Amino acid sequence: MRVYDLTLPIQEGMGIWPGDPPVRVRRVASLEAGDEASVSEVTLGSHTGTHVDAPAHLLRGGAPVDALDLEHLVGVAVVAHVPGIEHITAATLAALRLPEGCRRLLLRTHNSDAGLLGPAFHPDYVALRADAGEWLARRDLLLVGIDAPSVDPYDQEAGPVHHSLLERGVVLVEGLDLRGIAPGVYHFCCLPLKLVGADGAPARAVLIDRWADLP
Amino acid sequence: MRVYDLTLPIQEGMGIWPGDPPVRVRRVASLEAGDEASVSEVTLGSHTGTHVDAPAHLLRGGAPVDALDLEHLVGVAVVAHVPGIEHITAATLAALRLPEGCRRLLLRTHNSDAGLLGPAFHPDYVALRADAGEWLARRDLLLVGIDAPSVDPYDQEAGPVHHSLLERGVVLVEGLDLRGIAPGVYHFCCLPLKLVGADGAPARAVLIDRWADLP
Repeated sequence: MRVYDLTLPIQEGMGIWPGDPPVRVRRVASLEAGDEASVSEVTLGSHTGTHVDAPAHLLRGGAPVDALDLEHLVGVAVVAHVPGIEHITAATLAALRLPEGCRRLLLRTHNSDAGLLGPAFHPDYVALRADAGEWLARRDLLLVGIDAPSVDPYDQEAGPVHHSLLERGVVLVEGLDLRGIAPGVYHFCCLPLKLVGADGAPARAVLIDRWADLP
Repeated sequence: MRVYDLTLPIQEGMGIWPGDPPVRVRRVASLEAGDEASVSEVTLGSHTGTHVDAPAHLLRGGAPVDALDLEHLVGVAVVAHVPGIEHITAATLAALRLPEGCRRLLLRTHNSDAGLLGPAFHPDYVALRADAGEWLARRDLLLVGIDAPSVDPYDQEAGPVHHSLLERGVVLVEGLDLRGIAPGVYHFCCLPLKLVGADGAPARAVLIDRWADLP
């Protein structure tokens, strides 16, 4: 049984979507200062690093992140490679010949290998064109993940891909670190903080290459 | 395949260990106010709600939460019921007759059903006596979880159980909500925020009752 961590580290100064709250961390108690334990306080935005978008992010009256069905976030997922530096179109996705029954799809693009995630924000990341969002919305998907700060390109402020998918109840995971992950089928577990009423939340996401059997 | 959420909701005013930072949440952008998206900022302590203690919480030079091996946090776990309102002793644990090969142990106590977790902090929670910590430390465990704010009773400031287990490299999960969880063997996934260098982190924890097979 192997566990792959798909999560960007959270720390002060990390790349953040322009205008979003920066990450701040401070020690409020410290062994080194003579306290009996070390305790920290962290401040961060709901869309920091590897994170989940809930429908409430873009849809009035949409479900908040704590109301998402865990069935969307935990289960079998397909990792597909989409190389190239152009945004992903419906034609790109059709050419992937995704397996029947694929309900959670993780897209590994140029971004992971080019280091376009993490320490700094890069607006020139690869994302999905509107027609790719429509193509995905026509499938019976529970979750779409990508190694980009957003499923939409940076210049698409209206967020057509977000809208296509969130309106269909598809959970979005952005900021996945898919470096070194081979295409294939895995067990996937993406667990966002259980922030009551929030539009999204930072998450920890892992792939599991075959679970140990239960006795 | 069924997924059980073992995580306390995170929100302002929730029960917090006395002296730890309170939870604060604010909207920094809002659809209702005419923004294109809703975005929130959250401030919270590293030991809020359901959370993981890293060795760095109590041991100088101990590993921080982002360095924990995911093998500890993801895998087969045993849920054991320990009813009663007395703290758990070595004798209580011996009587459980845990299965051979149990490496992740979740203890469901009186706390879950009595509502001693969540909205308010209750110092009268059930925890482990020092001899129970020593008993657990002699086994080859990767993780111990409990439905209490701490593995140590509230009046045990020195944290003998924390020390026994963290010094052996056992990851601790505190604040699990185990209401309604039957004793037995499950797949378990406890994913803390990947906070660089931190002494612990809020986590989302789930049990999975048999994974779907991979093709």
